[in-house]
Amino acid sequence: MRNRSIDKKPEISFLTKWPKVSSLEPERSIVIYDSVLSRVPGFTLWVEEFPHRYQVQSGEELKELTELPRHMEKILKIAEETTGRPLQIISIGGGSVGDFSGFIASILKRGVDLLHIPSTWLAAIDSSHGGKNALNVSGIKNQIGTYYAPSRVLIIQGLLFSQPLDRAEEALGEILKIGFVAGGSLYRKISAAKDQSTKTFWNLLPDLIDGKYKIVSKDPFEDKGLRPILNLGHTVGHVIESELKMPHGLAVLYGLGFALQWSRERKLLSQKSFDRLFQTDLTKLIPRGAKLASILKKLENVEEALAQDKKRATNRMIRFIFVQDPGKTKIQQVGLDEILKEIRRQSEL
Amino acid sequence: MRNRSIDKKPEISFLTKWPKVSSLEPERSIVIYDSVLSRVPGFTLWVEEFPHRYQVQSGEELKELTELPRHMEKILKIAEETTGRPLQIISIGGGSVGDFSGFIASILKRGVDLLHIPSTWLAAIDSSHGGKNALNVSGIKNQIGTYYAPSRVLIIQGLLFSQPLDRAEEALGEILKIGFVAGGSLYRKISAAKDQSTKTFWNLLPDLIDGKYKIVSKDPFEDKGLRPILNLGHTVGHVIESELKMPHGLAVLYGLGFALQWSRERKLLSQKSFDRLFQTDLTKLIPRGAKLASILKKLENVEEALAQDKKRATNRMIRFIFVQDPGKTKIQQVGLDEILKEIRRQSEL
Repeated sequence: MRNRSIDKKPEISFLTKWPKVSSLEPERSIVIYDSVLSRVPGFTLWVEEFPHRYQVQSGEELKELTELPRHMEKILKIAEETTGRPLQIISIGGGSVGDFSGFIASILKRGVDLLHIPSTWLAAIDSSHGGKNALNVSGIKNQIGTYYAPSRVLIIQGLLFSQPLDRAEEALGEILKIGFVAGGSLYRKISAAKDQSTKTFWNLLPDLIDGKYKIVSKDPFEDKGLRPILNLGHTVGHVIESELKMPHGLAVLYGLGFALQWSRERKLLSQKSFDRLFQTDLTKLIPRGAKLASILKKLENVEEALAQDKKRATNRMIRFIFVQDPGKTKIQQVGLDEILKEIRRQSEL
Repeated sequence: MRNRSIDKKPEISFLTKWPKVSSLEPERSIVIYDSVLSRVPGFTLWVEEFPHRYQVQSGEELKELTELPRHMEKILKIAEETTGRPLQIISIGGGSVGDFSGFIASILKRGVDLLHIPSTWLAAIDSSHGGKNALNVSGIKNQIGTYYAPSRVLIIQGLLFSQPLDRAEEALGEILKIGFVAGGSLYRKISAAKDQSTKTFWNLLPDLIDGKYKIVSKDPFEDKGLRPILNLGHTVGHVIESELKMPHGLAVLYGLGFALQWSRERKLLSQKSFDRLFQTDLTKLIPRGAKLASILKKLENVEEALAQDKKRATNRMIRFIFVQDPGKTKIQQVGLDEILKEIRRQSEL
């Protein structure tokens, strides 16, 4: 069934092997998948069992609106060849493929079934909830899109484990961010983790998905002011990402360090709590002090980058997310000048 | 507020004069309007009070997906100039402009507020509910779209009354169709109407909107099999529309006559009830007998046109809507051959 209500949690399955194609109703499905997955052992043989497929190249170009008419025309032709009903889109890929396929599913024939098979850790954490998708317009990211939740999500161990290790590292920022925002048992599990191996991530995944889902479901359309706490680490993270061309997840990890240090400076965190936060095997990977300073020093057009940030609340004011304790965040309106001053301060640490 | 739930009825206002622009929150609004409305006395002066406007040409070309990137780029530029928040799309026009604007509103920044000001009788009946919008892909109608309800609908007497009379005539098929489907007090009011003047339509409008809304709201996503009763008159109506290039509303009026005569032939309607149905000043305008036969005789490629009808249930079978009494319809699966045979029979009446 179409999952129109994004309040409803999709059915999530964690699979240790590839599901049988026949179990996914292939006759009514169009599989949209990332061409890069041909590198994954066994993938090509498996995906080619689906009679109706559309291969795409992941990346921002895929999300450009000018490309949509061409894609849509081809997908509609494929849709005509399907025999079962109702139509289903099966999306296999990371963030850009999920955004693209999710948007397609939400508008094709006014909305068809959507099944996500995420191929990256970040997509695995994100694809299972919220149902946000987006396209870019004239190179500006995520200008259009819909809220449209999948009815099912399949998380396949072999697919996630086959991703390059640096993609797993990129997920660390997101994992720790959710930990700080959610707190409680999830934070304790993250604190108990001994390494950033794929096995650790796999074991944390159900709780991470659940933790993020709980926050998102309180503010599904982002009009209640609750979901912005998920921007923890993103204000300065986005600046680092765009200025230094650093991968998103890694930039967020630096942004997290910045937010924690600023929380300490503002005395929202005691020195004792601050020190304790960095004592676990995963949290101690959050850059701070001299390591963070070396990155902050490289930033040049901070003001411009910040002003473009869509999360900017009002003119020259930004809602910044501070941490008081795991599970306890505080949103404060801060001036652009205050952030610039704090970046300068942390650059000298 | 964004009206995400299409179960929620939008606020509908019937106005006997143009509303003050300042009452429509112009600073946060982008007005998308049909250029043809410049012919309506006073319209241009009124609409130019809005600081943010986007003029379009109504018609199927407006709904073509290949045109969307160009429109969206311009609308995003206009959006940047708005000062208020949240963003609102005000759509002023008939069916194609409403479809276009509704789709834009549903995807712009993942959905913004939507206010409809319908400029035709058909759009006035339709715009207030359901929230269906659509674009065309490669010339094929309504291949993509969303369900996205307006939060408000303003029905302005001066705007509707300024439409050419033949546009009002086109609405008659839709009005009578809703009457037969809804029955009850709405059918009695239609039966009591003395002419097809704009004043009559204006007086019926609130009940027509209400009657159609009640049906649509029972099956908002068209997956419960209830909404198809609104296809009454459309099976053969569509064939007449496409084969003879007749306006949609008028073709439905002929289709309605066909459905009523077939209902009689199948003995779903007694001769007495059948005769009574045609005794009111509006219902007697439904073509039947020789008048209907003269049109049916002109049809050539009925089979092909029917096979293309998207409401076709399964191969060579069609769900046809019969009338047993006002307010009492019956859906029956009929074979393509049966329809062809009945068209031949009615061509000889």
